[in-house]
Amino acid sequence: MNWTMARRAERLNPSTIREILKITERPGITSLAGGLPSADTFPVEAMREATATVLRDTPREALQYAASEGFAPLREWVAAELATQGLQAHADQVLITTGSQQGLDLVGKVLIDPGSTVAVESPTYLGALQAFAPYEPEFVAIDGDADGPLPDALERARGARFVYLLPNYQNPTGRCVSAARRLALVARAAELGLPIVEDNPYGDLWFDEAPPPPLSAAAGVGDGGGAVYLGSFSKVLAPGLRLGYVVAPRALYPKLLQAKQAADLHTPGFNQRVVHEVIKNGFLQHHVPTIRARYKAQRDAMRDALQAHLPPGCTWNAPVGGMFFWIELPRHLDATALLPQAVEAGMAFVPGSAFYPHGGHANTLRLSFVTAPPDRITAAVAALGRVLSAAKPAA
Amino acid sequence: MNWTMARRAERLNPSTIREILKITERPGITSLAGGLPSADTFPVEAMREATATVLRDTPREALQYAASEGFAPLREWVAAELATQGLQAHADQVLITTGSQQGLDLVGKVLIDPGSTVAVESPTYLGALQAFAPYEPEFVAIDGDADGPLPDALERARGARFVYLLPNYQNPTGRCVSAARRLALVARAAELGLPIVEDNPYGDLWFDEAPPPPLSAAAGVGDGGGAVYLGSFSKVLAPGLRLGYVVAPRALYPKLLQAKQAADLHTPGFNQRVVHEVIKNGFLQHHVPTIRARYKAQRDAMRDALQAHLPPGCTWNAPVGGMFFWIELPRHLDATALLPQAVEAGMAFVPGSAFYPHGGHANTLRLSFVTAPPDRITAAVAALGRVLSAAKPAA
Repeated sequence: MNWTMARRAERLNPSTIREILKITERPGITSLAGGLPSADTFPVEAMREATATVLRDTPREALQYAASEGFAPLREWVAAELATQGLQAHADQVLITTGSQQGLDLVGKVLIDPGSTVAVESPTYLGALQAFAPYEPEFVAIDGDADGPLPDALERARGARFVYLLPNYQNPTGRCVSAARRLALVARAAELGLPIVEDNPYGDLWFDEAPPPPLSAAAGVGDGGGAVYLGSFSKVLAPGLRLGYVVAPRALYPKLLQAKQAADLHTPGFNQRVVHEVIKNGFLQHHVPTIRARYKAQRDAMRDALQAHLPPGCTWNAPVGGMFFWIELPRHLDATALLPQAVEAGMAFVPGSAFYPHGGHANTLRLSFVTAPPDRITAAVAALGRVLSAAKPAA
Repeated sequence: MNWTMARRAERLNPSTIREILKITERPGITSLAGGLPSADTFPVEAMREATATVLRDTPREALQYAASEGFAPLREWVAAELATQGLQAHADQVLITTGSQQGLDLVGKVLIDPGSTVAVESPTYLGALQAFAPYEPEFVAIDGDADGPLPDALERARGARFVYLLPNYQNPTGRCVSAARRLALVARAAELGLPIVEDNPYGDLWFDEAPPPPLSAAAGVGDGGGAVYLGSFSKVLAPGLRLGYVVAPRALYPKLLQAKQAADLHTPGFNQRVVHEVIKNGFLQHHVPTIRARYKAQRDAMRDALQAHLPPGCTWNAPVGGMFFWIELPRHLDATALLPQAVEAGMAFVPGSAFYPHGGHANTLRLSFVTAPPDRITAAVAALGRVLSAAKPAA
């Protein structure tokens, strides 16, 4: 049988990271490649209690079909939580999604036509590129510096359907956009009539001080608002529950909801009720600080190891939150070419090229500091240092 | 801010059924409108035990990111189960989805180009029309009779990307396609080079004898296979878990997998492990017969009530499985126009027009017999009979 594929299927591709993760599941390898939170942070005991409570008190409701918008008390919780961060939204603007990855897919489905322009940071989250790509946009890369994307660079995005931004401890660079830069970006986007899609999976993972208010607080998600905001429970509770949310202006919400309904009817109601049961009485206020403390210690271990072991010519910035270091190697080195040697030496990283909308940047790589304990981070970075020190220039 | 929508967003629409369900949630209304399984069939105690087991034995694995393909033992279970129904597939052809609705979305994403043709039964499952529509196909309606779609009618689908078929107790008509018709359909589709997308959410809900083997058993899902098969745990366990699966030929599987990854990374691993824990030792072999017995008694109650209370000129076939009766009213009656009177009389149905790819057929309606107990079914059908008997011809 001859299956004729849609043209958009050409834009679906195997994930580089996925392939690397398979390679590095071998025993004896310390993988710093994954974007996985530490499983030691998962609140197993709270989950046990919450699942028991939900299956005791509301089993039929939790196991039946449910509203496409999401579980009402969870939507209210999200709206109240965002208000504490300066983002004013009503619960009826909150759409619960099957992980925030689904939010990216729904945004793409509703906003991207083939050939339309979508502006992204360069580099940016690979999963967003993968979610948007099948809708066949042209990606425009927004240049930036250590403070964040450059407001003047948004000029290149004039006429784009939206600009996709991750201001907090970005995947892959770990960069946090400054408060002043946020306001400048929102102002410039408003001048250009450019909608903002803000993704914030890592914002709670700050080490010394909370990040500035979200872009969406300034751009607005209400009537006439200029932003869509995406959040997730994957990094503060557990990703295996697949729970995220989108907050959208009323001009956009009904179409996102209809796309959600077409995509999977609704996010599992059981999971929504369990998570609401876990968090409804302030659980995250004492749980998230334990994650921050753990990740900060791991960040410190990686920072020290990088300083001790990486050869001259390698550069990085110490992230002040999140999960990732972003390394630039000397220009003559190719991270993809060096990966087999790194695996041979007992560690793994993700080459940075896949995070760029137009590829290139072969001399970059991403390291996660949250999956391995400090002593293994140190050993893995030392191994990376040996591989880099011995490396010959790329052919 | 001016949000420019994608052209495909025009094909996203509010669900008729969704609106009707909201209306009929009022107290005092017996709704026969929903497509919801009976919550009394949900295996709450087995779920309690399974969640406790998963959170005791493999909590970190269940709560961490997981493979996009799905939980390997669950994929193996699905392949083994399908083999007992005559469908030979390997576990690595099974993709676990967030409900089988997601399978429909992924199939549409990978196979439908704007303007390409998709053939569907007429009427067919509304959720499939909603999943496919944003990818902008032209729908071609395949005529049928009481035995199923007509093989010769497939001629109209020549060149279509696929024909979408629900052979078992179809939603909305309750029709079960005969064994001979299945083989004739598969043979004709093969002659035409027409791929089959087979959806089977209701096949386990038979009352007196199991349905014939799936179309996919004859068309094949292996190398060179002509069918994709979609299944679901929603009707035999619980829909609130959102667990379904797609079985696909190797020519198609990688693209469906990549689309799945872009859509939500993976279906909640926690849910997959819990369901596998529930079913791994043959639970469904004693659980599903209890659902069949319950639904059969409800089917009988509705059949008897229809015979007793519907006025002359109304026709229906007694379904031998599934969840639905499909009623044809005299041609001069309009089900949508009569719905407010039915609600006033204390019951609700779904007008049939929405299930037709090109609308029309105003004199049809769908009744579910699984949501209300027999005495309320009888009263609701009696109320419907009074409304129909008093009805004036549509203007």
